[in-house]
Amino acid sequence: MFPAPAGTKGIGDDCAVLQRGDGFDTLVSTDLLTEGIHFLRDRIPPRDLGWKAAAVNLSDIAAMGGTPVGTFLSLALPKDCDDAFLDAFFQGYADAAEVYVTPLLGGDTCASAGALTLNVTVLGECPHGRALLRSSARPGDLIYVTGNLGDSAAGLKAILDRIPGSAGTRSLMRRHYHPIPRIAEGLELAASEGAGAAMDLSDGLGSDLRHILKASGCGARIDVNALPLSPELKHFCQETGADPLELALCGGEDYELLFTLRPGTEPPVPCTAIGVITAGCELVWEGTDRDFTGFRHF
Amino acid sequence: MFPAPAGTKGIGDDCAVLQRGDGFDTLVSTDLLTEGIHFLRDRIPPRDLGWKAAAVNLSDIAAMGGTPVGTFLSLALPKDCDDAFLDAFFQGYADAAEVYVTPLLGGDTCASAGALTLNVTVLGECPHGRALLRSSARPGDLIYVTGNLGDSAAGLKAILDRIPGSAGTRSLMRRHYHPIPRIAEGLELAASEGAGAAMDLSDGLGSDLRHILKASGCGARIDVNALPLSPELKHFCQETGADPLELALCGGEDYELLFTLRPGTEPPVPCTAIGVITAGCELVWEGTDRDFTGFRHF
Repeated sequence: MFPAPAGTKGIGDDCAVLQRGDGFDTLVSTDLLTEGIHFLRDRIPPRDLGWKAAAVNLSDIAAMGGTPVGTFLSLALPKDCDDAFLDAFFQGYADAAEVYVTPLLGGDTCASAGALTLNVTVLGECPHGRALLRSSARPGDLIYVTGNLGDSAAGLKAILDRIPGSAGTRSLMRRHYHPIPRIAEGLELAASEGAGAAMDLSDGLGSDLRHILKASGCGARIDVNALPLSPELKHFCQETGADPLELALCGGEDYELLFTLRPGTEPPVPCTAIGVITAGCELVWEGTDRDFTGFRHF
Repeated sequence: MFPAPAGTKGIGDDCAVLQRGDGFDTLVSTDLLTEGIHFLRDRIPPRDLGWKAAAVNLSDIAAMGGTPVGTFLSLALPKDCDDAFLDAFFQGYADAAEVYVTPLLGGDTCASAGALTLNVTVLGECPHGRALLRSSARPGDLIYVTGNLGDSAAGLKAILDRIPGSAGTRSLMRRHYHPIPRIAEGLELAASEGAGAAMDLSDGLGSDLRHILKASGCGARIDVNALPLSPELKHFCQETGADPLELALCGGEDYELLFTLRPGTEPPVPCTAIGVITAGCELVWEGTDRDFTGFRHF
């Protein structure tokens, strides 16, 4: 129903890509967050909610290898969102705007009859034709992720189960509340001649990798023993009996970059090799007899 | 807290304006619509809701004198929004996308624990420095509006009060359900050497005109007897006892353009002269002893 015009990539990647006349492409992504689905207002400090709203959108620009340019924030506010809440929320949003040099350029604010709902649209840019796409993986590419997987999901579990906070658990909760968009890493990748496909991990590797495979028409083998797990995550799982693979592959919200590099390419950013792109369309989890599908939105 | 960088106009107009390197400016606007505040799901046909969601955002591009480029749609869907609802909604959205040659380029869809909420971000463009701003009115400018005022508010009243639909009332309801963004008129105005300030009428002239006056540091005199009122509106008010001035000045959602032209400029589009910009900061309603403030969001 909604084909994109020539020169424009529309629905189907982390950002839309709009060609301009000055040698750059404009990148656009939009994300809606609503109370009761994406967050529980009584479980996330409002300053962290403000940070996270900006950061998860900036992560979509990072996934394309772009430079963020500005954001647009829409807020539907229930009556019980008081000034103290809003001040803290906007402080967190401003923190992210400052760290990533991405000004808030507009928005919309209205009353809500129900849930607190917010939408962020982020604009970015990159040199024409250099955006990292989900469709650029090829058989033989090695598959990498930045950072560690599962920390955010473990942090969320600690928050929801009200698990008392050791220092390690608090750092996991911090990873859930305060994700770090991999802007610098995305720019390094986009500048690398050996770059393949890329996206950010919002729903968990078990779900997100399938988007790259589908867009690229490939399969993959992932070595689950190679997945980067933090000492804090391992300790949390020992203490609580939680399953590290489940958290790392199905948990989501790590906002790390998942990307591929052509064989023989030296990774331009700190990362962990976790598998290889294959011909065909099969996704094989090596080192386990289980399957992993990640977060389902409906 | 959120200053715009050099070369960019951020918060405070119908769209943000981002300078590019190819002689054009990118225009961006975003609007959030939530059930129970902006619409009642059982009172607006879903196809009209889809049209309206796109059209009211396109109206912000029209208000800047821009050409729309693409839209981004976020949807938070309650469980009872079924496939038939969504099919009709997207058909209406696609109708507007086709009429205004503005493809849907991306978005976000998620579950909602409560209200149906949707956010549209629209991108447009105009030659660099040619966007119509709220801040460009000058004392002596004549003030104009396109179309008629109050029809949408009368239509909403008919819908909410379940007033039986004569042909005239149905046309008012149509104006509420199916607003027409004044894209062509905005482009004509932006190309006119005598153009002053412009914005679209979403909250009613009594409220919206104050934005132009504040941004331009001016006052205005408006002749309420000159306001363009449709025969259908006049008839509706005779039949129901509704107040035409209240509907025309405080009702909102007409999505007509409100603009000023330098003295002696021939209007380049069909419109009605309703007053004059004055020095100072006073807003005077001539022909009535009442005051009008338009819709208040909180």
